[in-house]
Amino acid sequence: MSQIPTREFLFRLAAAAAAETLPRFRQKLVVDNKIAADFDPVTEADREAERAIVSLIQTEFPQHAILGEEFGEHGNDRARWVIDPIDGTRLFISGVPAWGTLIGMTYDGVAQAGIMSQPYIGENFWTVGEGAFLEGPGGQSKLAVRDVGSLAGATLTTTNPRMFAGKAKERFEALEAEVQLTRFGLDCYAFAMLAAGHVDICFEAGLKPYDIVALIPLIEQAGGIITTLSGERAENGGDVLAAATPKLHSQVLEILNR
Amino acid sequence: MSQIPTREFLFRLAAAAAAETLPRFRQKLVVDNKIAADFDPVTEADREAERAIVSLIQTEFPQHAILGEEFGEHGNDRARWVIDPIDGTRLFISGVPAWGTLIGMTYDGVAQAGIMSQPYIGENFWTVGEGAFLEGPGGQSKLAVRDVGSLAGATLTTTNPRMFAGKAKERFEALEAEVQLTRFGLDCYAFAMLAAGHVDICFEAGLKPYDIVALIPLIEQAGGIITTLSGERAENGGDVLAAATPKLHSQVLEILNR
Repeated sequence: MSQIPTREFLFRLAAAAAAETLPRFRQKLVVDNKIAADFDPVTEADREAERAIVSLIQTEFPQHAILGEEFGEHGNDRARWVIDPIDGTRLFISGVPAWGTLIGMTYDGVAQAGIMSQPYIGENFWTVGEGAFLEGPGGQSKLAVRDVGSLAGATLTTTNPRMFAGKAKERFEALEAEVQLTRFGLDCYAFAMLAAGHVDICFEAGLKPYDIVALIPLIEQAGGIITTLSGERAENGGDVLAAATPKLHSQVLEILNR
Repeated sequence: MSQIPTREFLFRLAAAAAAETLPRFRQKLVVDNKIAADFDPVTEADREAERAIVSLIQTEFPQHAILGEEFGEHGNDRARWVIDPIDGTRLFISGVPAWGTLIGMTYDGVAQAGIMSQPYIGENFWTVGEGAFLEGPGGQSKLAVRDVGSLAGATLTTTNPRMFAGKAKERFEALEAEVQLTRFGLDCYAFAMLAAGHVDICFEAGLKPYDIVALIPLIEQAGGIITTLSGERAENGGDVLAAATPKLHSQVLEILNR
């Protein structure tokens, strides 16, 4: 597929986004609540970063389709970009540099390339389909999941422990009871840490495609597994489970589907 | 008090700690569980960083007392250093650069100076008693709390939502219901964000002195308030509440003491 972007193009997109996000990070932000009943801030940074990314893609690949968090669908093509300019807006507005700019590309619906960029730290996690890599303050390294052997040695993450209710809450708490360590509140950064071999299980309920498409090839190229709770590919979002090994993945699926 | 350290000395201490922590961050770590029943990892990085800090203090201020997380008390003096080489060890072992090296100094039991250093990002939050400052990727800035006016506009943090049980759980959930946003899992980084004006309320139960002493003067010099739940100074740890304004502080104390 000659339509797969280069590393250089992914980094150009990330840099264009950073030029909009970084100057607004830790400033007094005007926050619009998209959904008044739930706290889902959309910032100027989010909108301007998406505009910048879309503009570059439309210049370089005018035929490609684009789905953005802020402005929705553009066009229709076998190659489709999926963008979340600021994943982890709650981290962003709390000043914590664990938010990320997510830019992924699917071909015939399957994620092929992606970048997760954290510009304040200066970290880019990326793949164009032949290995996944981190470039950051510590230099460049190849991303690879780890194998802790069993649930009892595993680190689990989810963003919001308050999002589970009823049966889902019971199942998640059953999973928590099996693992060594549970961390909350990390959004995309947790998936990057799974790809890098520091976290073993990430579970998120109710994801949108732009929350996850960029992360799928990072996880897969690092040797991990990522599916929905029903075991399907995760490009359409939903309840998504990433795991470092097939054994952990099937054990966790079993617990969360009880 | 001529015994207050300079900015330069605090940065020397932080750099000496970073030389021990950074090479071990995101490596395969040997983790000893201090308390088998609870997950409280102590790493080689923790021990070596404390050794490095203590050695520099003993050379520069041989008469000062020192309390370290790893090796306990050294000496007895009106000036006393209080050190947590890696606060947020769970973040450290999960690969997330929101842990910090905490170095504080008390005089007659009152915190006077402190630094919170995050060496992977390259951030230092520090005070020697005349204003508090951040030096990091975005340059140098003066730390100042913000005033969101009311609980309804406030961001609340606590590290572990699972640590509350019974009445304490009810009270914390009552507080969560009043605020706009709650974030988990940030340890010292949340207090730094309160000092920087991005978070409004930090509550932690069961702190040790080395978890909090370095952060007290950062919060106070940024205009915030930090006490125990009974309203006393927090240098001895315990259940500690930091708030951006006196109004928020008294409102939250009232809820958590119901």
